[in-house]
Amino acid sequence: MPTPMQALLSIAAIRASEIPATARTMARFSLFDWLVVARAGSNEPVAGIVRDYALSEAGTPSASMFGTSTKLPARNAALANGTISHALDYDDTHFAHVGHPSVAIMPAAIAIAEREDLPAAAIADAFLLGAEASCRIGMALGRQHYEKGFHQTATAGAFGATLAAGYLLELGPERMQAALSLVSTRASGLKSQFGTMGKPFNAGIAASNGVEAAELARRGFVSCDDGVAGIQGFIETHSDQPGGPEVWTNPPPDHFVFEDIKYKFHACCHGTHAMIEALLTSLRSHAIRPDDVAALELRVNPRWLRVCDIKSPRTGLEVKFSYAFLAAMVFHAIDTSNDTTYQDKLATDPRLLAFAKKVRVTGDAAIGDMDTQGTLSTVDGTQKAIQHDLSRRLPDHVIETGLRKKAAALLGQPSADRIWSAISDLDHLTARNIAALMNG
Amino acid sequence: MPTPMQALLSIAAIRASEIPATARTMARFSLFDWLVVARAGSNEPVAGIVRDYALSEAGTPSASMFGTSTKLPARNAALANGTISHALDYDDTHFAHVGHPSVAIMPAAIAIAEREDLPAAAIADAFLLGAEASCRIGMALGRQHYEKGFHQTATAGAFGATLAAGYLLELGPERMQAALSLVSTRASGLKSQFGTMGKPFNAGIAASNGVEAAELARRGFVSCDDGVAGIQGFIETHSDQPGGPEVWTNPPPDHFVFEDIKYKFHACCHGTHAMIEALLTSLRSHAIRPDDVAALELRVNPRWLRVCDIKSPRTGLEVKFSYAFLAAMVFHAIDTSNDTTYQDKLATDPRLLAFAKKVRVTGDAAIGDMDTQGTLSTVDGTQKAIQHDLSRRLPDHVIETGLRKKAAALLGQPSADRIWSAISDLDHLTARNIAALMNG
Repeated sequence: MPTPMQALLSIAAIRASEIPATARTMARFSLFDWLVVARAGSNEPVAGIVRDYALSEAGTPSASMFGTSTKLPARNAALANGTISHALDYDDTHFAHVGHPSVAIMPAAIAIAEREDLPAAAIADAFLLGAEASCRIGMALGRQHYEKGFHQTATAGAFGATLAAGYLLELGPERMQAALSLVSTRASGLKSQFGTMGKPFNAGIAASNGVEAAELARRGFVSCDDGVAGIQGFIETHSDQPGGPEVWTNPPPDHFVFEDIKYKFHACCHGTHAMIEALLTSLRSHAIRPDDVAALELRVNPRWLRVCDIKSPRTGLEVKFSYAFLAAMVFHAIDTSNDTTYQDKLATDPRLLAFAKKVRVTGDAAIGDMDTQGTLSTVDGTQKAIQHDLSRRLPDHVIETGLRKKAAALLGQPSADRIWSAISDLDHLTARNIAALMNG
Repeated sequence: MPTPMQALLSIAAIRASEIPATARTMARFSLFDWLVVARAGSNEPVAGIVRDYALSEAGTPSASMFGTSTKLPARNAALANGTISHALDYDDTHFAHVGHPSVAIMPAAIAIAEREDLPAAAIADAFLLGAEASCRIGMALGRQHYEKGFHQTATAGAFGATLAAGYLLELGPERMQAALSLVSTRASGLKSQFGTMGKPFNAGIAASNGVEAAELARRGFVSCDDGVAGIQGFIETHSDQPGGPEVWTNPPPDHFVFEDIKYKFHACCHGTHAMIEALLTSLRSHAIRPDDVAALELRVNPRWLRVCDIKSPRTGLEVKFSYAFLAAMVFHAIDTSNDTTYQDKLATDPRLLAFAKKVRVTGDAAIGDMDTQGTLSTVDGTQKAIQHDLSRRLPDHVIETGLRKKAAALLGQPSADRIWSAISDLDHLTARNIAALMNG
């Protein structure tokens, strides 16, 4: 059984030619989705603050940043872009990792690839390997790490960002080990920032930490031997119930756990998405008007009851965390994919209030955290079972359709198409072509 | 009883006119000592690496860095200077804090003060308040935090650096609270880096994190309400046995726990200094040649047995952690204050090997961790009790003499005198005058 450090070094040693098409496809979907949500978030207040600070420092123009044509050193661009891309909380989620891999890792990969003038395909490959490392470390830290108050997106993410940056810098195993051990003393991120600008900032610090650790290791920085799983390393100090050896079995390139990545097609809490998909499926087969519904009974994993079951939301933001109101929106054909939909007035919309009263949510520990089951009762007395499990992998064309629809909703059709076209042509472009899409 | 956050905000609200002379004097000693050890460490390999990376990024020339005339943005200067100043591990120690306040906080204070063109006295005052915050948070995190594997210099230090930077930026209570809460998600540092370049780097990250948090808060960054002692805040997530309310009693300006700061007058592990002082005291009263010694029995706090009781050191670095060899050096009048003394050849010096055989060290939990007691037996059959407790505050003139002797040993007399002269004249200088001493 390899140690976690050996497993990570094996991931870093995977050659581009060994990456299976299924994993590569998902990495490219993530690159597309990341560019879209970051562009859409680039005018958020937190984006303005981190950008303003970064621009005040200036420095060697190496890497692009969302929302400005000025280039910055890679470390600072990664900090800003990580923050900006998580500002809308509309990016991808890996449930076993308990985190958002793209926003922590992509900014490190793209900043280094742009600076080093690498092929565009290298961004996605480096991201994939970094994300795989991040997922595995997130699993090794375990759910207790998250429950205690740590934010895997930031903590595990820093290791993934380091691996991605180091891969592009071709560190080799000895320097890569130094980089991963060094970032162990730098990785951080607390869940108590949720609901504030600190949450997206956590993604930025992971990305920035990754660039920094790889850059210092490249210069010969001497770190401890194993900052990941060694004595008083990151796992020992940050998790009381770490995952066992099973975390590291079925390694890539044969098996990428990253492939379980889930994209958000709705601009609300990921815990509500299975319900929305189940209702949309039902509505596609049966024309049901809101007034036809007598009751909607939902069964979800109990963890979500403390996350996204706000019965009486007061703001548009709180609607994003309300099963009842989101169900009402689906029945009233209100677009859940566009972030700008979630205005405060939704919370007082009498149509939604009336429908929300008919929704009942109960916890059931036998139901997985990506699954939702339920019963839709109509006024004519019929009952229909509804169900959707996000853990089932969608066909590529369904993902593509969903991501492009979301992109068009957020950025408009021309920008969405331009970015999609570039990602489709990734093997013929450079990293600088992709970086140019941050603002063009 | 104030909450920890309230206590910190009270520290930040102390006006310069309220600072008592005793505390101010110690802060200025720390500023002198910090400049000295940082200059002496500026050619260490780790200094070259962080400097090279910082210079490659360049940026708005705001703050000076040891070892180059090029100025950098404050955040990056703080990262480099924190690392450089801890490279020799010859800086001050606060035992209750369990950490090194100056290397984490001074770089943040001086970088902001230089950029903002503030009076020199403001550096020392901001440092003092930041160090007080760091000491109190270090005590609140408690020894268990350290034993688990965290490095208070870096973790508690980040809060102190934030307070110092925010004080100079005149954040006011609301923005100061945001800064302290924000740095809670960024503070990090592991003890597993000890013995590597990662240890001094931990000081740098604390300083850099402090500048960053203060700068972002100044721009309106919204963080959680209480990242220090709130739910899933830094203390809850990083300490299983936090200190109680007693940590926050006897607050400044009436009582600065920082005043218990201890300077290193010997370039070796601080755990050995009480022994060295005890032996030097004994040798000042009695002329004892090495061959006169039959046995030296030492009693120390048991924690030191795992830190600085290397019986057979193999290198000059290991000699720094060897009671037996350091005792031998004292009896052979080998200068323990000069870092360059600790060459590998000491480990094989037959005179030291012979003396070391006569030294026996035992742990005694009744003895404080700044205390050493023992018995010196001479070949004529007499026994002398020896003892020294570092916790006793030295008269200012003794500290001054020790610091200036150390400075002269490290930098040569002219540089030592020039820096001392500037610190003595602090009230008539600007921060930029002090920053110029980093390299001149």
